[in-house]
Amino acid sequence: MDDFNIDSLDDVIHGRLRLGVMAYLSTAGSADFPLLKTKLQATDGNLSVQLRKLEEAGYVTIGKAFVGKKPQTTVTLTAQGRKAYIAYLDAMKKLIADSGL
Amino acid sequence: MDDFNIDSLDDVIHGRLRLGVMAYLSTAGSADFPLLKTKLQATDGNLSVQLRKLEEAGYVTIGKAFVGKKPQTTVTLTAQGRKAYIAYLDAMKKLIADSGL
Repeated sequence: MDDFNIDSLDDVIHGRLRLGVMAYLSTAGSADFPLLKTKLQATDGNLSVQLRKLEEAGYVTIGKAFVGKKPQTTVTLTAQGRKAYIAYLDAMKKLIADSGL
Repeated sequence: MDDFNIDSLDDVIHGRLRLGVMAYLSTAGSADFPLLKTKLQATDGNLSVQLRKLEEAGYVTIGKAFVGKKPQTTVTLTAQGRKAYIAYLDAMKKLIADSGL
């Protein structure tokens, strides 16, 4: 545990809902808003806020389009986001390994 | 990612500083306050608050004693805390495995 530094866990990713979004997008690549909401059992408001934080960090892009008359919001993981998520998981793997459990 | 549920990550443990405390204690078993403060580069105030949350959850005990005239605070992981930490790491391992990274 001597080398574990909590700062190595990217705080933007660490928030539980944001972590859920990143985990989902790390395999799916992109998802529309209602799907994320369902998968993560989130409210509109909270999901919007957390997605904005991820967007501000450059980890996702949020695209808006109309499908027919219906607006659709698509969230896509960026290359930078994937890199940051991998770094986060690496830090977490280290924590797990150092815990020896 | 279909089965990942962010609720599976115990929020009491997930907070970064609390996670750092739990990770440290998972190997050390117990530690005095100044050591935790140094290891986790925390302030007195924040560390106290987070330790109290862990104590309220039953994950650590906080003992106070005098060593000579000097008060000493010792934080010790409980069996319940270890169990919760293992469950947390298991959920995190699942997240990592499901991310396929």
